Amino acid sequence: MTATALPSHLPSTMRAAVLRAPEKLEIQERPVPRPGPGQVLVRIEAVGICGSDVHYYRHGRIGDFVVRAPMILGHEPGGTVVALGPGAARHQVGQLVSVEPGVPCTRCAQCRRGRYNLCPDVSFYATPPVDGALCEYVAVDEDFAHPVPDQLTAETAALLEPLSVGVWACRKGCVGPGSRVLVTGAGPIGLVAAQTARAFGATEVVVTDIAPQRLELARQLGATATVEAGATRLAATGFEPDVLLECSGVPAVVDEAIRTVGRAGRAVLVGMGGDSVPLPLAHVQNFEIEVTGTFRYANTWPTAIALAASGEVELGRLITHRYDLASAEDALTAAARDHTTVKPLVCPHPS
Amino acid sequence: MTATALPSHLPSTMRAAVLRAPEKLEIQERPVPRPGPGQVLVRIEAVGICGSDVHYYRHGRIGDFVVRAPMILGHEPGGTVVALGPGAARHQVGQLVSVEPGVPCTRCAQCRRGRYNLCPDVSFYATPPVDGALCEYVAVDEDFAHPVPDQLTAETAALLEPLSVGVWACRKGCVGPGSRVLVTGAGPIGLVAAQTARAFGATEVVVTDIAPQRLELARQLGATATVEAGATRLAATGFEPDVLLECSGVPAVVDEAIRTVGRAGRAVLVGMGGDSVPLPLAHVQNFEIEVTGTFRYANTWPTAIALAASGEVELGRLITHRYDLASAEDALTAAARDHTTVKPLVCPHPS
Amino acid sequence: MTATALPSHLPSTMRAAVLRAPEKLEIQERPVPRPGPGQVLVRIEAVGICGSDVHYYRHGRIGDFVVRAPMILGHEPGGTVVALGPGAARHQVGQLVSVEPGVPCTRCAQCRRGRYNLCPDVSFYATPPVDGALCEYVAVDEDFAHPVPDQLTAETAALLEPLSVGVWACRKGCVGPGSRVLVTGAGPIGLVAAQTARAFGATEVVVTDIAPQRLELARQLGATATVEAGATRLAATGFEPDVLLECSGVPAVVDEAIRTVGRAGRAVLVGMGGDSVPLPLAHVQNFEIEVTGTFRYANTWPTAIALAASGEVELGRLITHRYDLASAEDALTAAARDHTTVKPLVCPHPS
Amino acid sequence: MTATALPSHLPSTMRAAVLRAPEKLEIQERPVPRPGPGQVLVRIEAVGICGSDVHYYRHGRIGDFVVRAPMILGHEPGGTVVALGPGAARHQVGQLVSVEPGVPCTRCAQCRRGRYNLCPDVSFYATPPVDGALCEYVAVDEDFAHPVPDQLTAETAALLEPLSVGVWACRKGCVGPGSRVLVTGAGPIGLVAAQTARAFGATEVVVTDIAPQRLELARQLGATATVEAGATRLAATGFEPDVLLECSGVPAVVDEAIRTVGRAGRAVLVGMGGDSVPLPLAHVQNFEIEVTGTFRYANTWPTAIALAASGEVELGRLITHRYDLASAEDALTAAARDHTTVKPLVCPHPS
Repeated sequence: MTATALPSHLPSTMRAAVLRAPEKLEIQERPVPRPGPGQVLVRIEAVGICGSDVHYYRHGRIGDFVVRAPMILGHEPGGTVVALGPGAARHQVGQLVSVEPGVPCTRCAQCRRGRYNLCPDVSFYATPPVDGALCEYVAVDEDFAHPVPDQLTAETAALLEPLSVGVWACRKGCVGPGSRVLVTGAGPIGLVAAQTARAFGATEVVVTDIAPQRLELARQLGATATVEAGATRLAATGFEPDVLLECSGVPAVVDEAIRTVGRAGRAVLVGMGGDSVPLPLAHVQNFEIEVTGTFRYANTWPTAIALAASGEVELGRLITHRYDLASAEDALTAAARDHTTVKPLVCPHPS
Repeated sequence: MTATALPSHLPSTMRAAVLRAPEKLEIQERPVPRPGPGQVLVRIEAVGICGSDVHYYRHGRIGDFVVRAPMILGHEPGGTVVALGPGAARHQVGQLVSVEPGVPCTRCAQCRRGRYNLCPDVSFYATPPVDGALCEYVAVDEDFAHPVPDQLTAETAALLEPLSVGVWACRKGCVGPGSRVLVTGAGPIGLVAAQTARAFGATEVVVTDIAPQRLELARQLGATATVEAGATRLAATGFEPDVLLECSGVPAVVDEAIRTVGRAGRAVLVGMGGDSVPLPLAHVQNFEIEVTGTFRYANTWPTAIALAASGEVELGRLITHRYDLASAEDALTAAARDHTTVKPLVCPHPS
Repeated sequence: MTATALPSHLPSTMRAAVLRAPEKLEIQERPVPRPGPGQVLVRIEAVGICGSDVHYYRHGRIGDFVVRAPMILGHEPGGTVVALGPGAARHQVGQLVSVEPGVPCTRCAQCRRGRYNLCPDVSFYATPPVDGALCEYVAVDEDFAHPVPDQLTAETAALLEPLSVGVWACRKGCVGPGSRVLVTGAGPIGLVAAQTARAFGATEVVVTDIAPQRLELARQLGATATVEAGATRLAATGFEPDVLLECSGVPAVVDEAIRTVGRAGRAVLVGMGGDSVPLPLAHVQNFEIEVTGTFRYANTWPTAIALAASGEVELGRLITHRYDLASAEDALTAAARDHTTVKPLVCPHPS
Repeated sequence: MTATALPSHLPSTMRAAVLRAPEKLEIQERPVPRPGPGQVLVRIEAVGICGSDVHYYRHGRIGDFVVRAPMILGHEPGGTVVALGPGAARHQVGQLVSVEPGVPCTRCAQCRRGRYNLCPDVSFYATPPVDGALCEYVAVDEDFAHPVPDQLTAETAALLEPLSVGVWACRKGCVGPGSRVLVTGAGPIGLVAAQTARAFGATEVVVTDIAPQRLELARQLGATATVEAGATRLAATGFEPDVLLECSGVPAVVDEAIRTVGRAGRAVLVGMGGDSVPLPLAHVQNFEIEVTGTFRYANTWPTAIALAASGEVELGRLITHRYDLASAEDALTAAARDHTTVKPLVCPHPS
């Protein structure tokens, strides 16, 4: 089986937002991809802009991942199935889907054990050299185009990707009924993590940030308390969390926040903060804290869909700006500009 | 019920090795303790000298634990039950026992959850202000005087304490059949951890140290490979362990060793290395390493006894020196002197 | 330390509902207990009547537990601390508490591992030969008199005991965000289990029973669907739960309900159903179902308090009848009479 | 990519042992399969005969799995890679391999979670309608042809399949250092399970069977004790295992054996025993026993290879008979004939 021709009502080319070099984003004309065996073609309605998109845009790299050739950005797409590749049978044309942006090899030791986020051969959108979804159409394995129920829109379908980050962080943190959770950093991921922790049953969720506007939003979304200006002040509160969800990536915050965690607690390092951070060894030993980091997610979409559909997590509240594809660069610069921007969306097919 | 009088054949006083100030150890005459309700009196035949004893001896403190009043050192005792307190019914006089040196409160949240090593109110030998076991007799709760089978001696009974550290480290590391384990540091704990990892089913156990004599002993005790001079050289070997048991406490080794751990691996920080060490954040995130530390142990004696009795772990091989109580200070200075000392024992009642 | 005299404003005797023989309940005059060391005296305001109380009342036994001497029934007490025993320091007089009705030995292997519900030496209210709480005062270890916050009353404090059964069942079932749960049997325990499953994040909770009134209540309390008349009809719905919480104890229901559980699912047998039930072996093997039973609970009060205080579980809705102590026998007979009785309470000190 | 032509030195046809109807096995000439993309062609040197082969041979079915068309039996093959399909790059021609006999879909929820043994679309050798390996050559996905080290032979490579059953049973049973294990049934699986339990660190492994010869072999292979005639007699011994590995499939044994399991213990039902068995509910509840069944295995080959290569499990000792392919029917009848047969092998290419 090979890829089939596109239905005649679909265009043969599309626009795509291509990163050519740091701070050089260009809208290019590209062929509409033809869905291969077991794939579907998705018309992209909304793409969330993530901190990693912004980081690639500014620096052309994230750690060891370096953009060496022009690459389409974007890895949070929601859209509609418009064509089926050979053998694809899971969807009907017209189905609204959320696209999981990483397709693993399915064969390696990590995939076989169900930890497919750790697959060394994963193909992940907008991670060099793989093109992303900041364009009009993508072809994707049908199993990674998750159908979403009527309670969701293309926009909230797009935001199931950051919600998955929150779900994964809460799973790694073993957040459960009655948990007391500290979330450091109230950016999009911190706000999602705080909501997810509540949905997982946490009864205390304290959020810290330096921006009062973000803390206000955190409280609206379910945080039971907030602390401005971070860890030092936090220690003074005496709050001793069971679980830390570290979403700032600031080394000093990582260090101080871990020091607040209670006996047998867990610290999940979600925020990216470079090659090395200080670890408070004596505290980790004396209290037997479990410290770990997250790398994307695995098997999170079913849970994310359930939480978004039931309303336990409100994704729409995170959207602060919308752009068309031609203005994608504005979305990337807006995301870093000030603390009133939470989650910008790019809508390649505005109605 | 209160403590009863001692049997008449027992002395009323005993000698004890008391730390009066850093590097000032004194043999003092103390009353033989009377066993309280549910306690037994143990005649101590052998006490292992541990790195923490040496650290208290030299510095008068370990981190936040400060020796403010004269304290008997020693927390690895093996001996014989010589008297029963009121209501004590678990042992017969004459039973050889290994004394677990920490008695928790049994009431707090940690105790109730089975994590009694994290009990904030634990009473632990030779941790200020609690006296230890470097003396002739101790009174101890009968449930913490573990009877040992005939395959063990008082000396190997004493060494069930460090073996418990190894068992706990392997449990925290989820060492199991087929595991590939890296042990950094071949002191007494590293050597016990390596043996324990083998007993837990690890099929590759690589041990690193700067002392070739210790590595030779590691190989004799079951290490499948050894690397001299630590982490940098280790990375060059390409060995990618599932589990790191860090027993050196050297910050640079902690950092480098964690960087060798494979995807979804675990790093258990056993060696004490001060307040803070560098954590390779990007590696911990990209590979989702679980990092934790150990604080003593809980529920390890039954396993330790089984491993020692079956011969899967050879404790006797670790004993390099024996001292009488009057020479306890020599045992403390010997333990740090050179790399040929592995485990010195003090035998308060040499025959 | 021994028990102290009672404060002078307290009476020296009290009334207690004593089971003398099957179907022979007698109100007797008993001394008010004096709180021993570390104990508090609790004035009982409300006691829930449980199916096991009814079973003892009717049959004088539950399996191997046989009432051989007169015994006070009742093990779901809520009340107020009115006196402190020697050394008791955790409460102030006047504190509203929920009494956890089983005090374990704290010394055995089960207690040490945090599974204190399996302690063979536990002393549990209203389990022969231990007297229960269907009386005016009980003396209890301060650590088992859990203080409750202002959102709770003595009545809902009493019902933290059945809520603990639900919390424990959900823990054993690994219920979590997005779980699909089947609850068979909509008696008090089934209704609590369904609510708890929702609070643990389950997004589908299907409840079955033969009584439409109970199913109506289940829906009001959060069940997402109900099925009248049990398992056979259930199989026809095609619902394939991740978790079964079996609360009926009917052998045919156990069998049929396990057959509906999906791959790698869990079946928790909460309802007591005698010595033996049929197990669908081929299904358990082919789908690798994990089947287990619950015996009381361990470490559940903190979570139960959090869920009740936050309103995620509504305990007050379960109370259908209230009796004074003199009418305790009516409470016992009412509990079994018809399907409109959910949870009767006995209030020994009606205001 | 499609399948390529076979190397010219290989034959174009081969012999295969085909089950045409119950008790009708026929040696047929079949084309040698051509390895497809990512596959390798394996020359089969040895195939173990399993109880399920015998069951299909005798009855033409196992439960819901019915042989409706002629099918090649056999699912325990060891052999040598003789040709590579397009894109296959993991092996060199000449590599000795153990073939894992089930290839899952890699796409479903079970596969994604790492539980690929529960994949509803798995293609498993000698399970209708999929042909097995009782023939001269098989084509297999390279990732399911596990290379084995020099310590193994084609015969022991074949027996990694039953060893995988033992590894999986021990994992499901959480067998670990110091575990006390009961193995009921000393057929090939029971004998492998007992050895594996020892390799997992179990310090007591009691094996029961009705055949003294098998118990003698169990003792030689590491059982610490044996009991003739099963469960009733077992209860009399007072042995209270932490883990039951039930390998007999006899309903009465299942029932009685579960009743011996200690508090918080685990019972793993490996032996197939029909649609339903009695479950001792009160014991399962009072002791909170976890009962589960096994269905094949997932991610077991690496561990099985490590255990066989290190000599911790002795597979060669299980082989009692060898047959050539023409005598495959004798192997099938021998396997059930008497208690001196443990594991018969069929060697399609005897040298």
